Amino acid sequence: MLTVNAIAATSATDPLVRTTIERRDLGPRDVLIEIRYAGICHSDIHTVRGEWGTVPYPLTVGHEIVGRVAEVGAEVSRHAVGDRVGVGCMVNSCRECENCRDGQEQYCLKGNVGTYGSIDRDGTVTQGGYSTHVVVDEDFVLRVPEAIPYEAAAPLLCAGITTYSPLAHWNAGPGTKVAVVGLGGLGHMAVKIAVAMGAEVTVLSQTLGKKDDGLSFGAGDYQATSDPATFEALKNRFDLIINTVSAPIDMAAYLGLLRLNGTLVSVGAPPQPLEVPVFALFSNRRTFAGSSIGGIAETQEMLDFCAERGIAPEVEVIGADAVNEAYERVLASDVRYRFVIDVDTLR
Amino acid sequence: MLTVNAIAATSATDPLVRTTIERRDLGPRDVLIEIRYAGICHSDIHTVRGEWGTVPYPLTVGHEIVGRVAEVGAEVSRHAVGDRVGVGCMVNSCRECENCRDGQEQYCLKGNVGTYGSIDRDGTVTQGGYSTHVVVDEDFVLRVPEAIPYEAAAPLLCAGITTYSPLAHWNAGPGTKVAVVGLGGLGHMAVKIAVAMGAEVTVLSQTLGKKDDGLSFGAGDYQATSDPATFEALKNRFDLIINTVSAPIDMAAYLGLLRLNGTLVSVGAPPQPLEVPVFALFSNRRTFAGSSIGGIAETQEMLDFCAERGIAPEVEVIGADAVNEAYERVLASDVRYRFVIDVDTLR
Repeated sequence: MLTVNAIAATSATDPLVRTTIERRDLGPRDVLIEIRYAGICHSDIHTVRGEWGTVPYPLTVGHEIVGRVAEVGAEVSRHAVGDRVGVGCMVNSCRECENCRDGQEQYCLKGNVGTYGSIDRDGTVTQGGYSTHVVVDEDFVLRVPEAIPYEAAAPLLCAGITTYSPLAHWNAGPGTKVAVVGLGGLGHMAVKIAVAMGAEVTVLSQTLGKKDDGLSFGAGDYQATSDPATFEALKNRFDLIINTVSAPIDMAAYLGLLRLNGTLVSVGAPPQPLEVPVFALFSNRRTFAGSSIGGIAETQEMLDFCAERGIAPEVEVIGADAVNEAYERVLASDVRYRFVIDVDTLR
Repeated sequence: MLTVNAIAATSATDPLVRTTIERRDLGPRDVLIEIRYAGICHSDIHTVRGEWGTVPYPLTVGHEIVGRVAEVGAEVSRHAVGDRVGVGCMVNSCRECENCRDGQEQYCLKGNVGTYGSIDRDGTVTQGGYSTHVVVDEDFVLRVPEAIPYEAAAPLLCAGITTYSPLAHWNAGPGTKVAVVGLGGLGHMAVKIAVAMGAEVTVLSQTLGKKDDGLSFGAGDYQATSDPATFEALKNRFDLIINTVSAPIDMAAYLGLLRLNGTLVSVGAPPQPLEVPVFALFSNRRTFAGSSIGGIAETQEMLDFCAERGIAPEVEVIGADAVNEAYERVLASDVRYRFVIDVDTLR
C-alpha cells in the first residue's frame, strides 16, 4: 500500500479537505502514475454533492488526470517509467462482453469501473485524481503526446473524449453543419474539435457573452438561445447538435433545428427525464441520442488528433486549496473554460 | 367538377354519414382513379375526432386507397387508363426543397399536401379515400402490382410504408434483431416486412393474446410487456425497436432493451410528449427516433417488395355502412388487422 496526499469530500455539504488516501500495491499489469494535473469536471461536483446517487464518503474525485509513469508492474508492456500518460473516466471494465470486445469499454454491459466511487477489482472503492499518485491497469492508461501542453492535457480525458466521440460517430466533417449547445468545459472542446474535423460550427449559448471566444475557437456563427428568433432563423439547419447542457432544454425547439436525418446528441445529463414531443422527431426523421465518453482506443485517437491539430482546452490552473472556490465558480459558469489543479501543490 | 359519393365526418362526435363531395376537373398531369378499396387507419379516427387539431368539417378521410385509373390528363405519362394504382398519405409536395429533391417528399419542408384535410393547390381542402373517385397528380400515384390481392393492397399505402421505411432506413436484415411494439395494423405489417428482410423479429405486446398470429407472421419470439420479467430478459438485446403504439410508453424500460448503437423508432404518435431519461440513452449509445410514412419512390419500392415476397396485410372487408362500427372496434383493438372498405358499396 502507498499512502498519498489527496483532497476528499466528506459529505454532500462540507467543503473538500486535504487528507491522505491509499493506493494499492502495484500488480503485474499496473502502472503507478505521479499525477501532475487534474481537471475539475462538473460531474465531480454532481457526485460529491450526492446529486447522482449515494456517495461512499470520504471520496476523492477527479477523472481528468495527467502525469508521469513512476513505476510499472512486471508484465507492463504499454508504458515505461517517465512516459507522459493520462487517465480518464474509467480504470477497468469486464473485457468480455460484446461492447468491451468491440472496444467500447465505456458501454461495458457489466458497468465499467469508474475512476472514482466505483468498486475496484480488489473490493475497495476507487479514488480519483485530486491526489499525488494513482495506480491503474496499463490498458486504461493513455499516452499523452508531448505536443499537448501539460496542464491543458488533463481535460481532454473527459471533456475532450466526451465531445470527440459523438462528433466522430455521427460523422462531423466537411459539408456538415454542427451546432454546439452551451460553451462551457465540454462545449468549447466540442467547437474546437468539430472545427478541426472540418465541420461548419454554430454555437448556441444563452447569451452572446462569450461570442468572441466562440468565434476565436473557430465557430462560424454564434446565436443566443434566449432570443426566440434564433430558433426560427436556424430551423431545419443542422446535421448534428451536441448538447452539453445538463439542465433540461426545450426539446421541441432544439429538435426543430435539425435537418433531414439530423441527430441531437446529449452529453450532459439532466437528472430529470426530458420531455420529447414525438411529432418533432417525425419531421425530418430526426433522432435524439445519448453518448458517454469514449472507448480507450478512441480516447487515444482523440489525444493523437488533438496533438496533430494543435487543439487544447483553455484552462485556469489553480492550487489545491482553491478547489472549493473553483467549485462555486463552475456552478456560476465563471470559468473559461476548465479549472485544472496543479497537483504539485498537494505534495 | 365531378360530384362523387363519399362518407364524411361532420363533427368530432357525430357518426360518419353518406354524402357527396366534389373532385376537381382533370388537370393535364392528373389521374382520375375509380376507387375500389379504402383502408381504415387509426389516424383517420384521431383526425375526425379532432384529436390532432382543428378539422375542416365536413371531411372525408382515408389515405389507404387502391383502384383503377379511369381517365388521365393530356400530359400524364406514368399511368394509363385501366392501371391498378394506389394513393397513400400525401397527394403533393413543394418539389423544390432539399427534402423533396432528395425523394423524401414526406418530409417536404413546406409541408406535404395530405390526402385529406390539407389545402390543395387550388385552395380547396383535400378529401380522402372513403369515396368512389379521387383526382391525384400522377407523381403521387403508385403502381400496385397484380400479385398483391386487391383488397389487401390498400393498407400497404400507409401501414406498409410507415413500417417499411424505418426498417429499411435502419438496416433491418440478416443478423439484426428487431422488436415490434404492438401487434395492430402497423405492427403486423412491421413483423411481416422485417421477417421478409431477413431480421430476427420479436413481438412485444401487452398480452400473449395474439401470440399465435405473431408467430404465424414469422416472428421468432413473442413476449408480454405486462410482465416486468420481459424487460429483464430482453435487456440490451435489440438493434432496432419499431414502436407502433400511440399511447405513451415507459421509455426507460423500452430503451433498456436496445444494444450498442440501437435505435427505438416511434411511428405511432402520442399527443403528449414522451418522458425520456437521458441516462437510458447514454448506455449503449442509444437513439430515439421518429419516422413518418415514406417517400414516393420508396413507397413504390415497398409495393414491389411486398409483391415479390408475397406479403400482404390481414384485412377484414366491410361495407360503407359499417364504418362507424369499425371505428369503435379499432378503438377496442378488435380488428385483425385492418378494416378495408369495399367502395363498391358506396356506388
